Amino acid sequence: MIADLKAKLQRAFNPRTVAVVGDKKQSDYMWLRSMAHFQGKVYSVQLDPQEFPGIEALGVPNYKSLLDIPGEIDYVVVAVPRAVAPRVLQDCIKKNVGAVAFFTSGFAETSTQEGTTLQQTLAGMAVAAGLPLIGPNCMGVYVPSIGLRNSTEQAWGVSGPVAFLSQSGANLVALSQAAAAGGVHVSKSVSYGNAIVLDSTDFLEFLKDDPETQLIGAYIEGIKDGRRFFRLVREIAPKKPVIILKGGQTPDGARATASHTASLAESMAVWEALMRQCGVLRADTVEELVDTVKALVMVKPGTGDRVGLVSMAGGSSVTITDAFARAGLRVPELTAASYQKLGSFFNIIGGSYRNPLDAGTTFRSVELLMKMLETLRDDTYVDNVVLELAARRWERDAKMMEELLAALQAFKDSTSKPFLMVLSPPSSEDHHERYVQLRDRLVGLRIATYPTFQRAADTLKRVVDYYRFRREVGA
Amino acid sequence: MIADLKAKLQRAFNPRTVAVVGDKKQSDYMWLRSMAHFQGKVYSVQLDPQEFPGIEALGVPNYKSLLDIPGEIDYVVVAVPRAVAPRVLQDCIKKNVGAVAFFTSGFAETSTQEGTTLQQTLAGMAVAAGLPLIGPNCMGVYVPSIGLRNSTEQAWGVSGPVAFLSQSGANLVALSQAAAAGGVHVSKSVSYGNAIVLDSTDFLEFLKDDPETQLIGAYIEGIKDGRRFFRLVREIAPKKPVIILKGGQTPDGARATASHTASLAESMAVWEALMRQCGVLRADTVEELVDTVKALVMVKPGTGDRVGLVSMAGGSSVTITDAFARAGLRVPELTAASYQKLGSFFNIIGGSYRNPLDAGTTFRSVELLMKMLETLRDDTYVDNVVLELAARRWERDAKMMEELLAALQAFKDSTSKPFLMVLSPPSSEDHHERYVQLRDRLVGLRIATYPTFQRAADTLKRVVDYYRFRREVGA
Repeated sequence: MIADLKAKLQRAFNPRTVAVVGDKKQSDYMWLRSMAHFQGKVYSVQLDPQEFPGIEALGVPNYKSLLDIPGEIDYVVVAVPRAVAPRVLQDCIKKNVGAVAFFTSGFAETSTQEGTTLQQTLAGMAVAAGLPLIGPNCMGVYVPSIGLRNSTEQAWGVSGPVAFLSQSGANLVALSQAAAAGGVHVSKSVSYGNAIVLDSTDFLEFLKDDPETQLIGAYIEGIKDGRRFFRLVREIAPKKPVIILKGGQTPDGARATASHTASLAESMAVWEALMRQCGVLRADTVEELVDTVKALVMVKPGTGDRVGLVSMAGGSSVTITDAFARAGLRVPELTAASYQKLGSFFNIIGGSYRNPLDAGTTFRSVELLMKMLETLRDDTYVDNVVLELAARRWERDAKMMEELLAALQAFKDSTSKPFLMVLSPPSSEDHHERYVQLRDRLVGLRIATYPTFQRAADTLKRVVDYYRFRREVGA
Repeated sequence: MIADLKAKLQRAFNPRTVAVVGDKKQSDYMWLRSMAHFQGKVYSVQLDPQEFPGIEALGVPNYKSLLDIPGEIDYVVVAVPRAVAPRVLQDCIKKNVGAVAFFTSGFAETSTQEGTTLQQTLAGMAVAAGLPLIGPNCMGVYVPSIGLRNSTEQAWGVSGPVAFLSQSGANLVALSQAAAAGGVHVSKSVSYGNAIVLDSTDFLEFLKDDPETQLIGAYIEGIKDGRRFFRLVREIAPKKPVIILKGGQTPDGARATASHTASLAESMAVWEALMRQCGVLRADTVEELVDTVKALVMVKPGTGDRVGLVSMAGGSSVTITDAFARAGLRVPELTAASYQKLGSFFNIIGGSYRNPLDAGTTFRSVELLMKMLETLRDDTYVDNVVLELAARRWERDAKMMEELLAALQAFKDSTSKPFLMVLSPPSSEDHHERYVQLRDRLVGLRIATYPTFQRAADTLKRVVDYYRFRREVGA
């Protein structure tokens, strides 16, 4: 639809110059503040003299028109009232910018004549001029490595393997923040709202060949060209995992997408079938999407469904087993050799080691815990190893915690089996600090942790299914 | 099985005197420490002179035998090696104590001849003597109002409406802690492990008539007398909600229960059918059980499945709607009158109000938020009202937060419709303190909050189904 789209998106995702049109005090200069760490040059375009001091205070040069800015502009964010949008777009076309993202909303999603007409105008102008228009009703491009952000809350000066596509700006910010907190940073991302010119398919096409992007998470409310979308996903998914959270998967939810991005409802049954055929990992919530991204990045790939479990109490050894079995995985009995090894040191009074391992009364030292993990690692009936830990246990013994962390790292490095952990948040604020410390240290070791048994189990099932798909298609 | 069981359990759940047998330094005197706030008299029984100074340091009088303690003993906790258990039980019988709980483990759950034989010995002695034996392999009774605890981590000096039964001590502690953090305290609870004498049914029988207990949450691995159990549950459930987390609901999980409490596997299909018939609320995880308890205690009862939703962004308004619809509830369109009201003040540019209400750009004041909630409250198509809030929003405006909290309280008091909230934990630790503050203030207002859309939705569905059951049986 847009000629030389890839080259133009290269400019937009690697901009040296950015212009923000229409940012203002009322929104606390959210866009200019988000660009505060941008590694290139930022310009403001604002006509209202009352806004000049605020913009000046941020140290950003302001112009009354985009056309007045000297030199090329690679990427533009527009936050003007909707009625003014076509005029700004006209300037973008004249200036031959790389791409423009319209934060401006109030288009077809309002179901008003004015909004729909304006949207058609914008789309017609952009397509005619060959200008990649992102949105409207979106937050545009996020490239943390160069400090190009959607929000002051997002990380910058970092870079990672995951690209997010999102029709919702708020979901994009939530996804990127949660992933970063979990130790996975973003390569490039984009919020693209109503998708009147560029749709998910266009961004997928771009990210397919982006060397920094190794997996793609997407929040999608609707697609314009289903055939092209799924053809592309089928091509990408075996190489770069694609995780999709479909917004509007229920009839009531579909009504909400119409009011949000004017996306049309598609049959979820069709989506499900296509996602399965194409090897897409399905997430139903923002949490599931981030959980899955963490596992794909941090957990070694595996296709086996048998799990060796270590838990810290009898009741939790039962509920963690149910969680993994409910997810569709298996918690098998171990080999005779493993039982012999475990029997040599395991305290069965107040514990048990049939798998799950109820380690509460045996786990008196890091060495003993490692013997358990190593037995599971070496057991041919076990494909995956999962350890539940409680942060509270380490409060009184910082030295033992250091020893444990070193041992967990060594264990992870010693095996090709998927290894992940459950670390439940404490009920009491008294233990919060130690919990965060342990969680963040594990993130630093690139060990994926999950706050509940079920989330760990469902995540592992999702990635095992994905690697099985990959094996089946010979990737 | 045990004569005058109810009277004996009255003594055990309302003890004036407690004895702990076999507590020791190696376990950091966990039992004596747990009893530190007990409102009656605590005695220690310990033979080993090396333990005397530690017990003395805790200010607890120690005796070499239970029989040496002057006066009656209402409740005994035993933490001796398993081989010694029968001798201690013999003393309990001679002393005519109210009840005894054996923390001691290593019985049938170990699948050893010694363990199985010892277990049979204990059961035979207790039944013959008519002594209510709790456990073994359990943590016994928890009555926070009188400071009788299973763990130093549990609340004391408080009292609430929920009783927990649990075959796992760790799960009982986790449940009581999480419920307390969520604002729901315990009336009486019990961890009962291998259930060789007293089973869940016996405790249900007792709690059925306990005036302090208004609902019962249970973690159950197996039952001895299914017929009696479900007959009793059928009687209790319409009056006092019963929520059951069945441990060992999968074949692998059932193997884990055998190693944990030597419980036998029962068909989950049968359990499901019976739970449904008896109006039991089903939870599959510890989190679900606590979520449900919170809703039953804090959310007004309702049988309608139509939900009015207020969310703070476009993407989350879609995903929250999908979450409630996936749970089996409906997010309907509103009345014309509501649309007229909402249309008079709602900013549809960057927002929408068809239900869900995407309030992000309209929510500029507490007054406007209340207008939204009141419109949903007054809408005859809406049965339940759910509000998503973010703590971050209030960081810069403590005054507005106070105004909001007062308004939410007034709103809750103004309607008989179920009202609950979603309050997502922030990704960044920077916002943790404010999040906890807002969450705890809402707990103080008795407003139930949930950390994810799906947990809120699944919980509401569970309690709506329960109140429908109650209506059907005419309770």
